[in-house]
Amino acid sequence: MKYRQSMVVDFYELTMANGFFLEGKKDKIVYFDLYFRKTPDNGGYAIFAGLETMINYIENLHFTKEDVEYLRKQKLFDEEFLKYLLDFKFTGDIYAFKEGSIMFPNEPVVTVKAKLIEAQIIETFLLQTINHQSLIATKASRIKFAAQGKKVLEMGARRAHGESSSILGSRAAYIAGIDGTSNVASDQLFGVPAGGTMAHSWVQLFDNEYEAFKAYAKHYPNNSTFLVDTYDTLGSGVPNAIKVIKEILLPINAKNYSIRIDSGDLTYLAKQARKMFDEAGLPDCKIIVSNALDERLIQTLITQGAPIDLFGVGERLITAKSDPVFGSVYKLVAIERNNKIVPKIKISDNEEKITTPHFKKVYRIYAENGKAEADIITLHDEVIDTNEPLTIFDQYSTWKTKTYEKYTLVEMQKPIFLAGKKVYELPTLKEVRDFAEKGLNGLWEELRRFDFPHKYYVDLSKKLWDVKQKLIKTNQV
Amino acid sequence: MKYRQSMVVDFYELTMANGFFLEGKKDKIVYFDLYFRKTPDNGGYAIFAGLETMINYIENLHFTKEDVEYLRKQKLFDEEFLKYLLDFKFTGDIYAFKEGSIMFPNEPVVTVKAKLIEAQIIETFLLQTINHQSLIATKASRIKFAAQGKKVLEMGARRAHGESSSILGSRAAYIAGIDGTSNVASDQLFGVPAGGTMAHSWVQLFDNEYEAFKAYAKHYPNNSTFLVDTYDTLGSGVPNAIKVIKEILLPINAKNYSIRIDSGDLTYLAKQARKMFDEAGLPDCKIIVSNALDERLIQTLITQGAPIDLFGVGERLITAKSDPVFGSVYKLVAIERNNKIVPKIKISDNEEKITTPHFKKVYRIYAENGKAEADIITLHDEVIDTNEPLTIFDQYSTWKTKTYEKYTLVEMQKPIFLAGKKVYELPTLKEVRDFAEKGLNGLWEELRRFDFPHKYYVDLSKKLWDVKQKLIKTNQV
Repeated sequence: MKYRQSMVVDFYELTMANGFFLEGKKDKIVYFDLYFRKTPDNGGYAIFAGLETMINYIENLHFTKEDVEYLRKQKLFDEEFLKYLLDFKFTGDIYAFKEGSIMFPNEPVVTVKAKLIEAQIIETFLLQTINHQSLIATKASRIKFAAQGKKVLEMGARRAHGESSSILGSRAAYIAGIDGTSNVASDQLFGVPAGGTMAHSWVQLFDNEYEAFKAYAKHYPNNSTFLVDTYDTLGSGVPNAIKVIKEILLPINAKNYSIRIDSGDLTYLAKQARKMFDEAGLPDCKIIVSNALDERLIQTLITQGAPIDLFGVGERLITAKSDPVFGSVYKLVAIERNNKIVPKIKISDNEEKITTPHFKKVYRIYAENGKAEADIITLHDEVIDTNEPLTIFDQYSTWKTKTYEKYTLVEMQKPIFLAGKKVYELPTLKEVRDFAEKGLNGLWEELRRFDFPHKYYVDLSKKLWDVKQKLIKTNQV
Repeated sequence: MKYRQSMVVDFYELTMANGFFLEGKKDKIVYFDLYFRKTPDNGGYAIFAGLETMINYIENLHFTKEDVEYLRKQKLFDEEFLKYLLDFKFTGDIYAFKEGSIMFPNEPVVTVKAKLIEAQIIETFLLQTINHQSLIATKASRIKFAAQGKKVLEMGARRAHGESSSILGSRAAYIAGIDGTSNVASDQLFGVPAGGTMAHSWVQLFDNEYEAFKAYAKHYPNNSTFLVDTYDTLGSGVPNAIKVIKEILLPINAKNYSIRIDSGDLTYLAKQARKMFDEAGLPDCKIIVSNALDERLIQTLITQGAPIDLFGVGERLITAKSDPVFGSVYKLVAIERNNKIVPKIKISDNEEKITTPHFKKVYRIYAENGKAEADIITLHDEVIDTNEPLTIFDQYSTWKTKTYEKYTLVEMQKPIFLAGKKVYELPTLKEVRDFAEKGLNGLWEELRRFDFPHKYYVDLSKKLWDVKQKLIKTNQV
């Protein structure tokens, strides 16, 4: 399928763009925030992913003659606008959290300052990319957390929602701590370590299970995982694995052998298999399980004491099955008038849906022990003196305050594009992954549990709060 | 993101391929069936989609020097095998249901007869493509059914799981009866009609709502949908829409104007808005609603008598939120030995998971009234004499039988590739859509309801049943 990312855009972005063009508004400077409102699975945090894809998109954003020809046929667009599109590129500023950052509801993780049409037209793609990849990264971090240090492999390609879903989903999962993938393209393109050994068909295509295992061990002496549930896990699979390990692998000092159980009562089978391997003098044989696993199932396997070394996770990770929608939105927060920033707000009956106006910054407050305590959103030009105590307050229940005496601040948004030029050096995937790990380690455990996690504070500075209240009261929409 | 579909493959397909190569099994002829076991959302049927993508994949299946270089670095693959990969292409036969077909659990919708490595290596991609597109098509057909003839637009690009998810998801939704999409790329590539008008930002970027609507009406006189919930739906949105329609659109005899309500109590707001338009003498103004809709919500809106003309459906369609995993599997069903087909079976404790062996055909049985009555799976060379009555029986509860005196049979699988050559002429997207519509109209209504739908019969011919029983009893795995 040959498509261009620039055309992965909601039609209304283009009708609005044409309208703004005809209204003489195309160069009006506007500010949009991208943020999400609700954490998937009611978790305590999310992981920001998709920045690299977004950067590539912005750098390559343009419309070809064929694109314009397609639009012309719609008989809705002005010829001058179509001409303008042929020279279109992004010339604005973009600030964003670093990829792999921990993020919380209602804070701007991406802020776009740009000419109106440029800022508007990128909405669909930015949302799609960040929603998808953050969804999978967040889900993956939950699964990895449940595994309590055990390895987890992503193997959901066959149930992913199409090609980019599988490739970029693996990448996002890797950022969040998953140890590898079954997806070859994710390794080839991004260096997500790919691996895998055999399917049931391998076993079925030999005269018997023993021959199948023996052939595999011969060809992959240091990478043998015997799939033991084709016929009878404990009756034939494990005994045949033991036989082949002893006959083929031990004599040549092969390492890294294991079995995989893909069906049945995983706890029972893993315990029995463990016992059989130990009694056979094979304590090094690892046990891998798979079969519709997710963080909840992994947690119950571990609670039951199943001696599992590695979890293979498929469909429930790559589709984020339990909550497959990540709901970032992209909202106008300011415009410029006579070179001055004019904050904009969108009111709603639901006070949590009222946007937070203005061009802003986000700071993460760290306590002395290195734990993230809260985030504070300020005006873009506000300075916090870290030599002074910092008092934050809840924007709705303002009597709820908290004061930090000793703390450090980290500014979360980094400049990514300035005047259309990329000013950000892309980290390697490994660096993104390490950064995510550091961020996860900086969270209180109370944020990571699955049921009723602690709610992290994301508060507004007094100055920003004042701006917001004033706009709400005067309804200066 | 530059990737090649051929590398969207589970790593184990390649380790197995290399192993088969080294074992001298690469040219062994095998038969694989692709089928699913459970209908999403416990519905009564599913829609087969993804065939066109699959055909393009098979036609372009190859490995480049770069691919082979990547594999060489894994230090797992034999040099002869890597050389073989450079010349690799698909040379086998593929039979499949026509795209847009209604399909049911446990019937082979795709059958691959090919040399072992060729049949094995395509597994991941075939499953991914067919799982994804069939998932969205099936979900879309449910949503369109709930809408009872009203129009439905797909507008979920921003919440899709990446680029191909959004583009091919729109296409699948269109096949299943959705009327259009917001996704420009889906229109440009496949001709899914794209449309859309304004976001809240359009309204916010004018001095007031009235000016915003007026400007839009001026530029798009025959395509105006006024988004009325930016400030106050009934207090300002609808009155401003009425004003602009009367001032700008009626005087020029403009057609095709409407409002969109994107938040709040959609039933109440639609009813009130309808009343206001009717009282203003604007019975032609249509009402569009959106906001996390799916088949269940649409059904309750209609039950409540909400006067809605068009439903905009986003995240819950494009992610199939209520059940986002379509679980097709790809199983070995036969091999050839001395040019004779030898059926293979995979036994399971769960009898419904026991595979149905052999190279097979699927016939759909139609009653005189044109309704699909049941599907019957036969051996590949079996002939049913339609001049004779046909008795079918349940493969588990064999005493449950049904006899058809007058009926017609349609063979469901068509040859798509023979000896690696495409022999199937791709229908246009419109033809696929019409075909799906015909298939849906051929279903008993009892299969289409959401709660406890009727179970459609998919039975085995007596000859096939005998083969299966024999293999189960002799455990000829």
